[in-house]
Amino acid sequence: MRAVDLIQKKRDSGEHTREEINYLVSSYTRGEIPDYQMAAWLMAVWIRGLTLAETASLTEAMLHSGEVVDHSYLPMKKVDKHSTGGVGDNTSLILAPIVAAGGLAVPMISGRGLGHTGGTLDKLEAIPGFNTSLTLADFRRVLRECGMGLIGQTAEIAPADKKLYALRDATSTVENIGLICASIMSKKLAEGIDALVLDVKTGSGAFMAKEEDAIRLAEVMVDTACRTGKKAVALITDMSQPLGRMAGHSNEVIEAIDILKGRGPEDLRDLSLELSAWMFFLGERTKTVDEGRSLAKEMIASGKALQRFRKCIRLQGGDERIVDDTGLLPMGKSQAIVSNPKTGYIAATRCRQFGIALALLEGGRSKKEDRIDHGVGLEFHRRIGDKVQAGEKLVTIQYNSSTKLAEARELIASAFEIGDVAVPSPHLISRSIGGEPR
Amino acid sequence: MRAVDLIQKKRDSGEHTREEINYLVSSYTRGEIPDYQMAAWLMAVWIRGLTLAETASLTEAMLHSGEVVDHSYLPMKKVDKHSTGGVGDNTSLILAPIVAAGGLAVPMISGRGLGHTGGTLDKLEAIPGFNTSLTLADFRRVLRECGMGLIGQTAEIAPADKKLYALRDATSTVENIGLICASIMSKKLAEGIDALVLDVKTGSGAFMAKEEDAIRLAEVMVDTACRTGKKAVALITDMSQPLGRMAGHSNEVIEAIDILKGRGPEDLRDLSLELSAWMFFLGERTKTVDEGRSLAKEMIASGKALQRFRKCIRLQGGDERIVDDTGLLPMGKSQAIVSNPKTGYIAATRCRQFGIALALLEGGRSKKEDRIDHGVGLEFHRRIGDKVQAGEKLVTIQYNSSTKLAEARELIASAFEIGDVAVPSPHLISRSIGGEPR
Repeated sequence: MRAVDLIQKKRDSGEHTREEINYLVSSYTRGEIPDYQMAAWLMAVWIRGLTLAETASLTEAMLHSGEVVDHSYLPMKKVDKHSTGGVGDNTSLILAPIVAAGGLAVPMISGRGLGHTGGTLDKLEAIPGFNTSLTLADFRRVLRECGMGLIGQTAEIAPADKKLYALRDATSTVENIGLICASIMSKKLAEGIDALVLDVKTGSGAFMAKEEDAIRLAEVMVDTACRTGKKAVALITDMSQPLGRMAGHSNEVIEAIDILKGRGPEDLRDLSLELSAWMFFLGERTKTVDEGRSLAKEMIASGKALQRFRKCIRLQGGDERIVDDTGLLPMGKSQAIVSNPKTGYIAATRCRQFGIALALLEGGRSKKEDRIDHGVGLEFHRRIGDKVQAGEKLVTIQYNSSTKLAEARELIASAFEIGDVAVPSPHLISRSIGGEPR
Repeated sequence: MRAVDLIQKKRDSGEHTREEINYLVSSYTRGEIPDYQMAAWLMAVWIRGLTLAETASLTEAMLHSGEVVDHSYLPMKKVDKHSTGGVGDNTSLILAPIVAAGGLAVPMISGRGLGHTGGTLDKLEAIPGFNTSLTLADFRRVLRECGMGLIGQTAEIAPADKKLYALRDATSTVENIGLICASIMSKKLAEGIDALVLDVKTGSGAFMAKEEDAIRLAEVMVDTACRTGKKAVALITDMSQPLGRMAGHSNEVIEAIDILKGRGPEDLRDLSLELSAWMFFLGERTKTVDEGRSLAKEMIASGKALQRFRKCIRLQGGDERIVDDTGLLPMGKSQAIVSNPKTGYIAATRCRQFGIALALLEGGRSKKEDRIDHGVGLEFHRRIGDKVQAGEKLVTIQYNSSTKLAEARELIASAFEIGDVAVPSPHLISRSIGGEPR
């Protein structure tokens, strides 16, 4: 097999065999195929596309480029959730304790934020002392003791993805559904899980702004999971405005704790319960999704989920007192208010701008190397469909560095579209796409 | 400007500005854009295409990546011919002496053969002592003395092409009309010529087997020449069978001398006269192409062209006695005959197979590094449309190494299609595509 022939095959819209994709990925990971050949292949893939079978082959080849974690020492089923990202999306911090408290294991390997989206690891690191860089041995110990654990990518997991992603980033070949799917799924399947719930966001704050693209990505990811013998479901959920009322790292930890205490905003609670319910169902903890939803509610009402979160924080070296006193979390020392310019109804938000504003205030990353100020946060006082008076507060900004405050304010202010007539609030969950393993 | 944005632009079918293409080519040549970014861009270009304006910009950027030869010391117009290559195509050896003898300068920078096609430099090197690696200073001296000179590519000329071509070869991005045009034209325009005649081959022995592709390439090359201020015409000519009766290096030198002596096969003479005629016309030596044709005939009839060829051989260090005694050229010591299997008419040839057979016999290159046996040759006894008897000679093979003789014979034998009815012989020149400089 020669790389140049495989490049030509994809260039000419051919479909690769499993063996061809294995050859490309394994040779590239070993450094036997140079970057320039892989770059040409990636561009051909970007333009010509990958079939479902090719996408599953690519996912498996990337998965097997590294270690697949073995959690067989845990007697219960292992489940996880992946979100395609957005603004204020902190459901991982909520559903992991719920699902672990409910009797399944959640061995979650998460990522960091980049651009307008936040990352679970960064949010956890707002908690003083919380260590997301556990060795696999320590990760196993945490999982054994509390049924959940939250760590970052290790060098052993899907090294092909790391190498390929850097190349895609430099060659404008990122936004392709097959490549996105393989990147996400190779890492998630390397976690050693039995089932996966996918939260695929759509709307102005999502990577897949158009619902049809989100649906397509969801279908491809669920198909890939099934082809590799895993259970999976995808929920298409709204990201046309921030999830919950808070964005920013400490802010989102506070809001997650609120939900675990039975308080907090309805949309965030509903989505967390729904995702937990599907995890219970796919993990065979409950016979139906409805039963899963009831179990999730019970885990909150009983305080067991909060207890589990507290334990996980302690086991991962964090200061568990933040659960009782969120004032221990870092918080921006200054406040600024964005007010509403004219009376009317919130018709829409350019949700991505909120995330970019956070990054401008150093509460997110424009580049991978950027350091994060965990105390930067936004609180949203109004949502789509709300009637708003001229001059009333729309957003409270919490910040430390004022270097780009004006720019951030402007982005936030211009993110709101105020109309003259009431619009319905968007559907939180528009559909579920599910499949059984083959 | 960032390479990644330009890659995305082409990926999304955008049209580059001249500045963008300049940036890509100059930065790549200087090593500031890595191979992997250029490879992704090349694949996007291969699939999305280049407009005429982009092709001209790319040609100019590649042209100006190196030195443009200055022949202003020569009082006459400078003209050249480029052929897209085929089997038995030795017109350069014929028309350069004709045109130089007729009063124009022909500063020809040629290439080597690869795959099924021969190269002018290799053919000249069949002449004992002939030096195709002159310094530019020596090249100028030869041109000054005899109005023609034939050398190979120098490192100073269009270095971007050398780098880009190697990358295209490794990334399956060779066969794209815009890229092919820029590669050819950047080198030809660097010769410091006023006008260029293009011989674009079509048929089973040509790179552009389909006539519509040949026409398109011709149009793009002529357009590019005009946009860069040069006169150009392209002739679409037949390569559905070998040109002339001979293929192979010594063989083609012999046949070129035959034509210069007023003998030799009609098709090769007609094409050489036609190309010379256009060179005289574009070089403003004659007022019409017809007058150019007459002048070309006169240069042969008077012996002036042959005289000019002899002088050039001497000036470039070759043994000029070969003009009178072609037995001084290296010639394969053994002969093999390919006979006709059944009575009928030659309906077609798979012409490319003749070239591959030559390479198998070491009379051509499969890889760039291969050495060439100049004595290997094929003589074709019959042409498309001829009635042939079972058992009569079709091809005489002249060879030294018999390692792959059986394979070569089989390729040659299977290259002939024998039918039951007479077919007309193909048109040698199907059309001309010309333009004036803008």
